[in-house]
Amino acid sequence: MISQTSEYALRAVVCLALSPEAPKTTADIAKVTKVPEYYLSKVMLALAKNEIVISQRGLHGGYLLAHEPENLSLLDVVNAVDPIKKLESCPLKLETHGTNLCALHKRINESISSVEGVFRETTVKTILTEPAKSKALIESN
Amino acid sequence: MISQTSEYALRAVVCLALSPEAPKTTADIAKVTKVPEYYLSKVMLALAKNEIVISQRGLHGGYLLAHEPENLSLLDVVNAVDPIKKLESCPLKLETHGTNLCALHKRINESISSVEGVFRETTVKTILTEPAKSKALIESN
Repeated sequence: MISQTSEYALRAVVCLALSPEAPKTTADIAKVTKVPEYYLSKVMLALAKNEIVISQRGLHGGYLLAHEPENLSLLDVVNAVDPIKKLESCPLKLETHGTNLCALHKRINESISSVEGVFRETTVKTILTEPAKSKALIESN
Repeated sequence: MISQTSEYALRAVVCLALSPEAPKTTADIAKVTKVPEYYLSKVMLALAKNEIVISQRGLHGGYLLAHEPENLSLLDVVNAVDPIKKLESCPLKLETHGTNLCALHKRINESISSVEGVFRETTVKTILTEPAKSKALIESN
């Protein structure tokens, strides 16, 4: 339901959250997240522009999370790279509908809201700490 | 959250449900739904192949709904043209994850399930009969 770009951004943010003190280059993140580096570089720029990550220059430069994982929702990350948008007016441009959506387009908005809800309620910290057989981005022992 | 193709298919099915006795050509449906005819023709073929609509041949031929609107969910329509798919295994292909998804990919599946839920619980009849200021596909009086 979310775009490839959004999924890659989520992987990148989780990667940075795994070692919050150590700046990571795009190449470092690409290796862990298995995202093609040229694609990831664009994702990282969007995350930096929207202040989800900080780009630290210098010899040991790289990206760092700009927020504590408990204060960063998955929705913040998704909306930084590929914002989830609801229908605001009739997609058919029916004059008498305008912003009064019909039942069909209301349902489509409900589905979008439901996705927003799942991602709004989940923080990056939850992804790191929730008990699960598999840990995000890491091979199990 | 759903594709353009799915949204067009939903419009087409609602269009057929508005006058269930009268077969409609692709051109008729395109006019009401405001979908480009060349695109709609592909959508209608997919709907026919998946038995959501019936293609009736002959002089007064056209498409008819293959089901009563109360027995047809929006999810049936969406899945006929662009099936909603959940992640079944780790998108990073981590060997030790396999089908044991991590918390991140579980959340992505939850978001997909939530969309499925909205469309599964809504029938085409509901779209036609739910009180609303705007009726699907029709200019208000």
